[in-house]
Amino acid sequence: MIYGVIGSGAVGAYYGSKLVKAGNDVHFLFHNDYQYVKENGLTIKSCDGDFSLPKINAYYKTSDMPICDVVIVALKTVNQDVLRNILSPLVVNGTLVLLIQNGIGVEEDLQKIFPNLEIAAGLAFICSAKINPGIVNHQCYGSINIGNFSCKDESKVDNLISDFNAAGISAAKVEYYEARWKKAVWNMPFNGMSVALNANTHQLLSHSATENLIRLQMLEVVGAAQKLGVKNVDELFVEKMLQMTREMTPYFPSMKLDFDFKRKMEIYYIYTRPIEIARKVGFEMPRLQMLESILKFQQAKYLSNN
Amino acid sequence: MIYGVIGSGAVGAYYGSKLVKAGNDVHFLFHNDYQYVKENGLTIKSCDGDFSLPKINAYYKTSDMPICDVVIVALKTVNQDVLRNILSPLVVNGTLVLLIQNGIGVEEDLQKIFPNLEIAAGLAFICSAKINPGIVNHQCYGSINIGNFSCKDESKVDNLISDFNAAGISAAKVEYYEARWKKAVWNMPFNGMSVALNANTHQLLSHSATENLIRLQMLEVVGAAQKLGVKNVDELFVEKMLQMTREMTPYFPSMKLDFDFKRKMEIYYIYTRPIEIARKVGFEMPRLQMLESILKFQQAKYLSNN
Repeated sequence: MIYGVIGSGAVGAYYGSKLVKAGNDVHFLFHNDYQYVKENGLTIKSCDGDFSLPKINAYYKTSDMPICDVVIVALKTVNQDVLRNILSPLVVNGTLVLLIQNGIGVEEDLQKIFPNLEIAAGLAFICSAKINPGIVNHQCYGSINIGNFSCKDESKVDNLISDFNAAGISAAKVEYYEARWKKAVWNMPFNGMSVALNANTHQLLSHSATENLIRLQMLEVVGAAQKLGVKNVDELFVEKMLQMTREMTPYFPSMKLDFDFKRKMEIYYIYTRPIEIARKVGFEMPRLQMLESILKFQQAKYLSNN
Repeated sequence: MIYGVIGSGAVGAYYGSKLVKAGNDVHFLFHNDYQYVKENGLTIKSCDGDFSLPKINAYYKTSDMPICDVVIVALKTVNQDVLRNILSPLVVNGTLVLLIQNGIGVEEDLQKIFPNLEIAAGLAFICSAKINPGIVNHQCYGSINIGNFSCKDESKVDNLISDFNAAGISAAKVEYYEARWKKAVWNMPFNGMSVALNANTHQLLSHSATENLIRLQMLEVVGAAQKLGVKNVDELFVEKMLQMTREMTPYFPSMKLDFDFKRKMEIYYIYTRPIEIARKVGFEMPRLQMLESILKFQQAKYLSNN
């Protein structure tokens, strides 16, 4: 099995390195960090124990990489259209692409570009950050849920999950659409609210006004999911997510980091797309739509100042 | 006619000074600025021409003031309960109190404290700011709409309006509840959004996402007003308000100034109360309720840091 990793940052480099450490044949694409990693390899500082890979298969362009059996895509979704060119040299009939990306609609859009591609959804539950070129700080968690989107041979997804678990990554199989909407219950409120109020998860839940607002936003996602026929997403799940977040170390979601560094935020797949999908079946999400507008305004302001 | 002015700031001192200049007998209550004004009087820098009143009737407590025929209350609504003590020495049977205050519910609450008081609502359309003790900068506009709330003798309200017009203040008679809700159509979106996004009216309307959000927020106020049976508040009025705001000089609403100076914001009467009133008749304002939560969170943060 040949693995490719596209987007070798906080998430991609972490999972890829774990696979390398377990003896898998993994090939990483880098952009800005290419030269550094080529010379120094990757270092993972982890709550489960640090480790280094002094020499890895690092590439600057995908046309130099081998054809892959599995391509792990862990890019931010802000320039999703680049996948058309980046993925082409890596995939043949039978290649499985695992999209470890935020939001709803990424699988559907990639399938439009590559109608025959076999795609799986990856939902990572991980707190990690790239702190320097080639250096990832894995703070906690790390499990991944994987759902089949368009893989004709289900056993391929099962094998991928086996490889992950054998590499010490807790991986489980899920129904992809249910998993995407469940993750949206957490992602939609917390990503945007942390930007809008410059606050971490703990601060947002410590004030009754914002705790209630986040609950109402979560219930908007639940309402949309139920209208779409998604199962196991209900009020009980909302309370479970709130309780889980209260017990977490105070956390700034990835969108807050993008905002702080004046990078493009993943507004489209985290907000615009699910709001559109819900509206098509007659369900409005007024609070999350308001949050989307706030984020668009703030992003336009700092991008135009750059 | 003896006039009292409670809250002699950007609005109260402006209208009071115009009344003095026109020959009326006006008595002003001051707090922090008392000593300065006692010695130096009031100065109005105005788009209509500057003027000074070197000597005015200035007081530090209402028990030293004469009983008034009309009391103009132009205090912020953040400590509305102080009116119980402040107003008592000034009012007798027959005194008319004009509440030039923001929000919805101020007349009703004051009436509960003083069941026999005769109350009128004042809605000021004015851009002014106190720039120093005793010095008001009146930038533009200045008209006032006055609506009878509980004055048994309608001619008293008419006489008040005549006095204002004779003093060069453009004053018109309106239906108080309609006027309060019409003003809320502008106040509820712009006050909070200018705080939430650190932006003036022009910036908020320059971006399509926030322009649309503000329209949706205005329509929430319209929906509530219509459900309450208020007349002449409709979609056409919303477009008129948007157009009027586009044509205005870029403006930071008063709540933004309160926020910048870390003062308490008028969240209760501008947001909480109208939201409650609408909910009682079965109408939800999700976007404005979200804005209320955002403001409460932000205020709690800076007040706890003080």
